[in-house]
Amino acid sequence: MLATVLHGPGDVRYESVPDPQILKPTDAIIKLSASCVCGSDLWPYRGLQPMDGPAHMGHEYCGVVVEVGGAVKTVRPGQFVVGSFCLSDNTCPHCRFGFPSSCEQREFMTGAQAPYARVPLADGTLVATAEIPPDDLIPSLLAASDVLGTGWYAADAACVRPGATVAVVGDGAVGLMGVLAAKQMGAERIIIMSRHKTRQDLALFYGATDIVAERGDAGVARIRELTKGVGADAVLECVGAQESMRQAIGCARPGAMIGYVGVPHGVQLDGQALFFSQTGMMGGPAPVRRFLPHLLDLVLQRKIDPGKVFDLHLPIADVAEGYRAMDERRAIKTLLLV
Amino acid sequence: MLATVLHGPGDVRYESVPDPQILKPTDAIIKLSASCVCGSDLWPYRGLQPMDGPAHMGHEYCGVVVEVGGAVKTVRPGQFVVGSFCLSDNTCPHCRFGFPSSCEQREFMTGAQAPYARVPLADGTLVATAEIPPDDLIPSLLAASDVLGTGWYAADAACVRPGATVAVVGDGAVGLMGVLAAKQMGAERIIIMSRHKTRQDLALFYGATDIVAERGDAGVARIRELTKGVGADAVLECVGAQESMRQAIGCARPGAMIGYVGVPHGVQLDGQALFFSQTGMMGGPAPVRRFLPHLLDLVLQRKIDPGKVFDLHLPIADVAEGYRAMDERRAIKTLLLV
Repeated sequence: MLATVLHGPGDVRYESVPDPQILKPTDAIIKLSASCVCGSDLWPYRGLQPMDGPAHMGHEYCGVVVEVGGAVKTVRPGQFVVGSFCLSDNTCPHCRFGFPSSCEQREFMTGAQAPYARVPLADGTLVATAEIPPDDLIPSLLAASDVLGTGWYAADAACVRPGATVAVVGDGAVGLMGVLAAKQMGAERIIIMSRHKTRQDLALFYGATDIVAERGDAGVARIRELTKGVGADAVLECVGAQESMRQAIGCARPGAMIGYVGVPHGVQLDGQALFFSQTGMMGGPAPVRRFLPHLLDLVLQRKIDPGKVFDLHLPIADVAEGYRAMDERRAIKTLLLV
Repeated sequence: MLATVLHGPGDVRYESVPDPQILKPTDAIIKLSASCVCGSDLWPYRGLQPMDGPAHMGHEYCGVVVEVGGAVKTVRPGQFVVGSFCLSDNTCPHCRFGFPSSCEQREFMTGAQAPYARVPLADGTLVATAEIPPDDLIPSLLAASDVLGTGWYAADAACVRPGATVAVVGDGAVGLMGVLAAKQMGAERIIIMSRHKTRQDLALFYGATDIVAERGDAGVARIRELTKGVGADAVLECVGAQESMRQAIGCARPGAMIGYVGVPHGVQLDGQALFFSQTGMMGGPAPVRRFLPHLLDLVLQRKIDPGKVFDLHLPIADVAEGYRAMDERRAIKTLLLV
C-alpha cells in the first residue's frame, strides 16, 4: 500500500510500503476511516527531534477492524474502533492505576497515516462502538485518539473543578481541546492565550470566555489582571517550551495544578522557584485509554464537537502539504482522507 | 529578655534583646510554653543560606496569649494558642483556597526561640484551645506549629489514600511526621528511607512498615523491589536536595504525586524526564493553618503523639548545644524549655 514516511526534516513522502500484517497474536489490523497529522509530528519534521532512519508516521486512528490475531478477544472484524496513540494492555498495575500511557507493555502507535494499520495490544487498546458511526462523526471520533484525549488529560491533571477559573497556554489543537475539556468539567471562566484569529474563534466556540493576545510577562500580567491578582485555579500547558512553561507557572495561583501535556523540549524547572510559587505539576503522555469510553459517548451523543479542530481536510496523497500547512501555521490540524 | 540570635554560621547566642511589643493592632504577644529548633534553621547555621545580619531565630511556637493589639478579635489574653510558622490573615483568596502559606499578607514567623514572642496577624494565624492543655501535651502541640503540619502537608500533597503504598524520603523530623500523617490517612504500607537506628525505631513507632537503609540508586531499586516493580503510590520528599528529589522521582509509580516539603536547595528538574516519569509534584511552604484545627484535635484526644520527635530537651539557655546536636545528627529535633 501507499503510506506516509518521513525521510528527514521537511521530507514527507506518500510512498509504497509493505502492507501491515498480524505480527503477534495480540495484534489487529484496521482499515482507517480517517487519519491526521499531530502537532508532535512537527518536532521531527522540523529537525528538532533526532531520527534513526525513515519513520512510518501517524499515531492517531479510528476505523474498522479487518483482521485480528489469535489471542484477541474483545474486538472482531467489522467493528468500528478507536484507540489511543499509546498502546496498552489495560491490565497491568499502571493501567489499573489509571495510567495506561505508562503501561508496562507500552508501545507508541506508528504508521497510522495510511489506509491500513497494525494495532498491537488490540484488546487493551481498542474501544469498539456499538454500531458503525455516521460519517460526519468520524473527525470527532478520530480526535478522541489523541488530541481530544490529551487536552482532556491536561484538564484532568490540572484538577479543573466546577466553577473554576482555568488558563490555557497554547492555542494549538491540544490547547483548544483543553478548552473543550475544561468547559465539560464545569469551568466557569476559561482564559486562553492566543493571537491567531481562527484559533481565537474556535476557542470561543469551545467555551473560552477570555482571550489573552499578549505573550510572555505581558500575558501573565494580563491573566493576573483578569483574575484580580489571584491567578488561575488550574492551568493547562499545551506547548512544551521553556517560555510556555514559565507562563503557565506565572499565571497559576498558589495551590493550583498545572496539567502539562506538551512534550517538554529544553524545559528546566528550578526546584526552589517552583516550591515558592506553590504550584503543582502533573503531566506526561496522556492516558487517553482511561478517558476513551466517556469521550466516545460524548461524541456519539453529539454533546461535543472536537472534529471542528480539523480545519484542513486533504486526501492522504497530499499529506506533505498537510504537514507544510501546519508547520507554517496555515492550518491548526490536518485531517487526512484515506 | 534573653533570646536566640544567630550571628553567623555556627554562631548561636542566647543574649539580651528588646522585649517583643505590639507593633500593629493585629499583633499578639505570647508567652511560649516551649520552643524548638527546626531543621531549616540549620541551613543558615551551616552557612548554606545567605544572611543579612544577625537573625532572631525560631518560628515554631505555642503558648499563652499575654497581650493583643486593638484589632484582634478571635484570641484573648489567657488563652492557649498554636500558630503556623507562616503568618496569614486566613481571609484572602489564597487562604480561602487552602493555601494560607501563600497568604497575600504572608510573613514568616521569627523570634520564637525565646520566652516571649510577637505574633503578627494573630486572628488569622492563631488557633486557641478550649482549655489550657496538660503539660505533657506541650511537645505535641508545639510540633503542630511546623514539623507535624509540614509532614502532614507532604502526605496531603502526595494524595495519600487509604490502602496506599507510601515512600518517605528523609528520616528527619519532617519525614517522621510524614510517616505519622500517612498512617493517619490510611496508608497500608509505609516505606521510609533511613539508616539511623533511632530514626528507624521512631519511624516504626509512627507506623512505618518497611525500612530501606540503602541510598541513591540502590535505595530506589530496593523500593521498586518491595513494590514488585511498580513503585510507590505516593512519595513524600522531606529533604530538599537534588539527590533526595531524584530518589523520590525514582521510586514513584507513574501517576503518583510527590509531596515535597524540604525547601529545595540546588534542585533542578528536567521537564522531559519528569514528563516521561509521569510523576506529579506539589510542594511549597506547608499551609499548616489549614490543618491546625484537625491536628490539635488529634493531639488533645491523644490519638497521635508527634511530640516524641523531640529526642533532646534542653533549657533554652543551652540553645547553642541544641543546634550543635542537630547539626551533628546526635538529635532528631531539640525542644527548648523556656
